Amino acid sequence: MITKRRLTKPDGRALVLYGDAALESARIEAPQPPGPPVRAASQLRWHPLRGAWVDYASHRQERTFLPPPSWDPLAPTVPGGEPTELPAGPWQVAVFENRFPSLSMSAPPPPETIVETQPGRGVCEVVVYTPATSGSLGTLDLSHLETLVEVWADRTAELGQHPDIEYVMPFENRGIEVGATLHHPHGQIYAYPFVPPVPAREIAMQRRHLECYGRGLLEQHIIAEVEDGRRIIYAGELVVAFVPAFAQYPYEVWIAPRAPVPGLPELDDDERADFARALKTVVLKYDGIREPFPYVMVIHQAPTDGMPHPEAHLHIEFYPPYRTPERLKYLAGTEIGAGMFTNDALPEATAAQLRAVEIDLEHPAR
Amino acid sequence: MITKRRLTKPDGRALVLYGDAALESARIEAPQPPGPPVRAASQLRWHPLRGAWVDYASHRQERTFLPPPSWDPLAPTVPGGEPTELPAGPWQVAVFENRFPSLSMSAPPPPETIVETQPGRGVCEVVVYTPATSGSLGTLDLSHLETLVEVWADRTAELGQHPDIEYVMPFENRGIEVGATLHHPHGQIYAYPFVPPVPAREIAMQRRHLECYGRGLLEQHIIAEVEDGRRIIYAGELVVAFVPAFAQYPYEVWIAPRAPVPGLPELDDDERADFARALKTVVLKYDGIREPFPYVMVIHQAPTDGMPHPEAHLHIEFYPPYRTPERLKYLAGTEIGAGMFTNDALPEATAAQLRAVEIDLEHPAR
Repeated sequence: MITKRRLTKPDGRALVLYGDAALESARIEAPQPPGPPVRAASQLRWHPLRGAWVDYASHRQERTFLPPPSWDPLAPTVPGGEPTELPAGPWQVAVFENRFPSLSMSAPPPPETIVETQPGRGVCEVVVYTPATSGSLGTLDLSHLETLVEVWADRTAELGQHPDIEYVMPFENRGIEVGATLHHPHGQIYAYPFVPPVPAREIAMQRRHLECYGRGLLEQHIIAEVEDGRRIIYAGELVVAFVPAFAQYPYEVWIAPRAPVPGLPELDDDERADFARALKTVVLKYDGIREPFPYVMVIHQAPTDGMPHPEAHLHIEFYPPYRTPERLKYLAGTEIGAGMFTNDALPEATAAQLRAVEIDLEHPAR
Repeated sequence: MITKRRLTKPDGRALVLYGDAALESARIEAPQPPGPPVRAASQLRWHPLRGAWVDYASHRQERTFLPPPSWDPLAPTVPGGEPTELPAGPWQVAVFENRFPSLSMSAPPPPETIVETQPGRGVCEVVVYTPATSGSLGTLDLSHLETLVEVWADRTAELGQHPDIEYVMPFENRGIEVGATLHHPHGQIYAYPFVPPVPAREIAMQRRHLECYGRGLLEQHIIAEVEDGRRIIYAGELVVAFVPAFAQYPYEVWIAPRAPVPGLPELDDDERADFARALKTVVLKYDGIREPFPYVMVIHQAPTDGMPHPEAHLHIEFYPPYRTPERLKYLAGTEIGAGMFTNDALPEATAAQLRAVEIDLEHPAR
């Protein structure tokens, strides 16, 4: 059973440590790096032609605190050293509120504009996967990865309880190619005050399918992927990973439980263990193509909007920016201006490359 | 009046030259660079969770012909030199079918997959803005830019007449930051066999507004932008340019006629002239921030699906990848995984920067 310990940083930001029972009694205080507190003046404005909220976080542009590249603000604070975001102590996974959040529960009312404008309320958290300063989802022990999946589930449940939070999305931007600046293994969580457009669309399509056919859209797709077999990257008893037949990105991979589990909190112990194995498999295979293999990873699950979502089927989507091991794929005119993705590789071809990468879940090469 | 001359390349691709009357009688043959003909095996697969087509063009991955970086395949062929895509001659703007198209009218029926799969029918054209090997939309003469706008209109009308083409989108990917590999001033046109998701969404939102309020959504937004004034970059008698109050990108700029003209073919001569002035103004101002200023530029207009579109209001959207003159903005977890854009700059702030750039439409600095 995971132990959870809540702390508050001097500037008021929450810090939650996850680990084993030793965490309960340890002497720990929440540190924070030097620099003035940041006042998050996030605002949302309505894009009337897209029918979507756009978030403005101008306090992020004016970052006054720029650590030297060698300094790791996500490493545990060393006694006598510059304080980081995290304490030393027996934690395995740590979560804290982003110092420069895109969304903040304390965002003040913004000035009016010519479009509908609201405070940018929400929560942006940083999820530190491990106290170790290097590594990845591919190098963490399976038991550690299970803890991480449990942390994601706990954050989903806790943040989702807030009446203003309608969607919780854990994600990771890995690699300089997608803008990541810190090498310490970590991800993020955004808790949105609305169901954002992409999950909203996926939920709507899944709902329509469930109503028409009485079975889950992704559940049935997974059955077809397994039957076809060519694009399967991991076939666990309870969880599968595959390059979907409709991949938007050349090396896109999805991970999902075979059964239509609505979200992370609903995974049972066995599913969580298999989810961890799938996750490790995919990242190790990615790193066998090019290391470190950059990606944007997002977790899509049921909204926390208080409505029932029998149509929702938890899954991870990986969007890697490479189209070959050497060449980047750019999102340009047709992707961002029209919304039609062009993919220079057939899913069957990239899946074959990933399938050919040999990995060892118990004893990774490092 | 613009003169148009049609030619066919040895491999069957269309070439259309636009210029003055001298073009009619000139001795011109359509060249093509060395290399085997490309068989475009494009296919579309249905993404059931996004409810969108994804395009696969694996022939693009296998490009056998890679010109040296110094060679310009869009420059007019020099007598005795390696043939390029274009002939010498009195043309001002040239359009030809892309040798490595994402969509092709001759795409063969693809093998079946576990999702709905169709041939990737459509047309991908390259639009060469000028025979000159350098320059940009900011350095072309205003009269030349008017010709370019007329060419875009002509392509829209011609491609849109095809019963299978439902949407024609001229666009430009400028700069290595958005994946452009050729420096010769040029753009592209995609003619889609369906209305793609982004324009479809904008059309739907505009239609709903017109039905509710009896006036155009963008028309009314432009009136509000002009009245506010802070984000206006160009205020011509007939055409305006502005950083929209709902900008998704820090330096996003829209150009639109004040009146709700549905598409490029419906611009009258005066509107076209003002459209050209707005276009030149925006690109010169961009280059005053950082030169060359990269961007993705897309033109949104009425679909060519045979339905009336009184709700459609022609406009250009510029998406520049920089968030400050030095720092790139990356599309990552929240943008591509959730669909919520976070913008680190308020539109008022970047508009002020662009407004402060002094330009001379008649005598650019170069």
